[in-house]
Amino acid sequence: MLKTDPCAENPSDDVAPWCRDRHGRAYSFEEFLVLTQTFHGYPAPGVVIGAKMVDIARKRIPPGVLFDAVCESDKCLPDAVQLLTPCTAGNGWLRVVPLGRYALTLFDKHTGQGTRVYLDPAQLEPYPETRYWFFGIKPKRKDKSDLLIQEIRQAQGMIYGVQSVRVKQEFLSKEPSDPRAICPRCGEAYPAGHGLICRGCRPETGYLLQGGS
Amino acid sequence: MLKTDPCAENPSDDVAPWCRDRHGRAYSFEEFLVLTQTFHGYPAPGVVIGAKMVDIARKRIPPGVLFDAVCESDKCLPDAVQLLTPCTAGNGWLRVVPLGRYALTLFDKHTGQGTRVYLDPAQLEPYPETRYWFFGIKPKRKDKSDLLIQEIRQAQGMIYGVQSVRVKQEFLSKEPSDPRAICPRCGEAYPAGHGLICRGCRPETGYLLQGGS
Repeated sequence: MLKTDPCAENPSDDVAPWCRDRHGRAYSFEEFLVLTQTFHGYPAPGVVIGAKMVDIARKRIPPGVLFDAVCESDKCLPDAVQLLTPCTAGNGWLRVVPLGRYALTLFDKHTGQGTRVYLDPAQLEPYPETRYWFFGIKPKRKDKSDLLIQEIRQAQGMIYGVQSVRVKQEFLSKEPSDPRAICPRCGEAYPAGHGLICRGCRPETGYLLQGGS
Repeated sequence: MLKTDPCAENPSDDVAPWCRDRHGRAYSFEEFLVLTQTFHGYPAPGVVIGAKMVDIARKRIPPGVLFDAVCESDKCLPDAVQLLTPCTAGNGWLRVVPLGRYALTLFDKHTGQGTRVYLDPAQLEPYPETRYWFFGIKPKRKDKSDLLIQEIRQAQGMIYGVQSVRVKQEFLSKEPSDPRAICPRCGEAYPAGHGLICRGCRPETGYLLQGGS
């Protein structure tokens, strides 16, 4: 895998992988773009950035520690976590907390000790396309997307902040599943603790038009 | 792929795939168990059930229609959707609405017309292990997990309810991204509409211990 082509524009990028997956498999920047396209639907800058964030955070988790993940935004970051760690939206090890910050945390699921990595606005000055994209200053421009992707690549780990953190207790303990009751309105099972009818049958919480279900 | 082994316990299962992925690739029941193990971490009954639900819903979406997905539970179902459709937790095409019902909807992202599939308690009588698992009547028993998985397989599409639905307008339109402001407390970017400081810096919404971040 080691490339020694002296004509390579960024030889250092070729020796250090962009990120590694849950099995330790290394991905070059280009390989991860392809993986992103496959899962996410297109080579989104946010997933590529998220992959570097996951990589930085995981290097600080001691080997053998079982970790969970929190994403502070539902934009792109959950897919980076799902592509590179065992944590998924459906297995309970990845949580999305809608704080709106571009940050993620990997933490020891027993102690809560972990590492939080965020995209640091203070570091974006030398990377104008990334800054435009992050702050949505200019509308998406297809002709500039290559420039943006290459900027993210060149920045390597320089645009991120890293913090040692401790996650609140209530995020560590998995709540036991509520017993299920049958909703008298729809006839489906729902967590009994939700009340006398299920949330799906309440107009204020349902997502379906009345009469549609 | 067609197996004609007369000794097969369920020859009909072998000719009809359990589900298909976004590219139309068919998965036998066993193949999908392996895929579930790879992504979800273990061959969870909920993901296998979710796959059949996705399969039933997608067959009712006209070819060529771009669809989004809603899961009404964050348990297992999002992973079935992510494994078999282009909709992921990070690309905005999959939403988890915490209604607590074991159901998912695939819908035309322009019109909101779609199909909702749910695990129907009224159909579970002939499938005791599935009923125990679904209602959490008995604690998880490792020795019975094979029995549960085989029951789900035998039930094929018999334990699901199917509805034509229409999704509310607010689920169709993607909200434009809020402009970002810099939080005076943490220095990170956040959606300006959240207020004067970001949600991460408010004790009531943050997930990190004070002083930890």
